[in-house]
Amino acid sequence: MKSENETRIEEKNAEFYKALEAQSVQKMDAVWLQEEWVSCVHPGWEMIVGWKDVRSTWEKIFSGSQKMRVSPADVNVRSSGDIAWVTCVENITVFQEDRFDSIQAVATNIYMNRNDAWMLIHHHASPIPVIMAETATETVQ
Amino acid sequence: MKSENETRIEEKNAEFYKALEAQSVQKMDAVWLQEEWVSCVHPGWEMIVGWKDVRSTWEKIFSGSQKMRVSPADVNVRSSGDIAWVTCVENITVFQEDRFDSIQAVATNIYMNRNDAWMLIHHHASPIPVIMAETATETVQ
Repeated sequence: MKSENETRIEEKNAEFYKALEAQSVQKMDAVWLQEEWVSCVHPGWEMIVGWKDVRSTWEKIFSGSQKMRVSPADVNVRSSGDIAWVTCVENITVFQEDRFDSIQAVATNIYMNRNDAWMLIHHHASPIPVIMAETATETVQ
Repeated sequence: MKSENETRIEEKNAEFYKALEAQSVQKMDAVWLQEEWVSCVHPGWEMIVGWKDVRSTWEKIFSGSQKMRVSPADVNVRSSGDIAWVTCVENITVFQEDRFDSIQAVATNIYMNRNDAWMLIHHHASPIPVIMAETATETVQ
């Protein structure tokens, strides 16, 4: 059974994915701890450090017109003191003009409890190429 | 200036990369907390959960005969209470039969202080494809 603490962390993690799906920088503002040392790795990107630069990357990503659905799965929450680390699979569907692509990524999200609120301090997502490899094989055949 | 604590965490992080370069499962045993909830994402892999399964993946990776050099760069250490999170760039050179490939990955490593020793509890590495794309271009030319 989940503790109240774990439930709150999982809710904040779900809020992060709602911000991603909504492509809302304002919603990201409410999720991230806005410090110069927070960090973020988007799938296939280098490490971005500092809230100002991390926020800019979200603005850039959200400036595209593609709609998407994002849902976290296999969510695993652990915490110790004021730090929590969450791992999950990100199921992402991107809607293009006349088709949609489904991709999976795996994520590590670290949260810090600041003033009794769990805030995102590090996000690392990486694509799971196995899915893409299978798709590629189907395409070739 | 680094605190004594940060120095110890960075040393353990360096020890992890020495274990990787030595391709030694025994050295990995000394770095990881051996619990059923520790987790690991190798570049391009899915999440592996539990020390037993994580250890098996290292055995599998190390069973190849390729020699490699690994050095962490841009190492950033932060900690709060008994949890530390380290981000770094992994510079990896893999020696093939008659050539070598240099790749870069970005990593998130989480450590837990257990009995006054910092032990690895989560490793997430993902390739930085920009570098590979550049290498590919050079090869084509």
